[in-house]
Amino acid sequence: MISITAYMNVKPGYREEFLEKVQQVIEHTREEEGNVSYRLYEETGNSNQFVMLEQWKDQHAIDVHNQSDHFQNFFAAAKKILAEPLTLKRFINDDD
Amino acid sequence: MISITAYMNVKPGYREEFLEKVQQVIEHTREEEGNVSYRLYEETGNSNQFVMLEQWKDQHAIDVHNQSDHFQNFFAAAKKILAEPLTLKRFINDDD
Repeated sequence: MISITAYMNVKPGYREEFLEKVQQVIEHTREEEGNVSYRLYEETGNSNQFVMLEQWKDQHAIDVHNQSDHFQNFFAAAKKILAEPLTLKRFINDDD
Repeated sequence: MISITAYMNVKPGYREEFLEKVQQVIEHTREEEGNVSYRLYEETGNSNQFVMLEQWKDQHAIDVHNQSDHFQNFFAAAKKILAEPLTLKRFINDDD
């Protein structure tokens, strides 16, 4: 299993647009065969700082996701909505 | 570097007490020599579901933290505040 944490810092004034667009990508992603978990969190006391905690069966699942229309649409919109590029941390479960 | 995600599901009615107690453990933990990052997030659209994203220099830093008064105090209070035991996922950075 591969875990990814995606950090998203949303520009002031774009919060509602972000939440609307990210909800679409969440719904579609959770239907993907290779997705295990895909959950969005906001930092407590530091609004507009979001993280997506993602879990994937394998690299192929990530590749399929990255090429999907719903992710590509979100990624294109993110350029306008995010204050800085989306950053990822990749992990291998130490518990496996 | 070792990353830990701690999942905390707070009982309804204990949110304020949780936020007050967790703030104390955050402030003290960030002063610990072996801590790299310690950030609290709440799930969007699913309140009271929190995660702490933690990063530590090494296992020794985690051991020191786990034996600290501030963590022990929080852990004792968590038994009353959390709807289920705190669960941890340990990771090794795939990017290192």
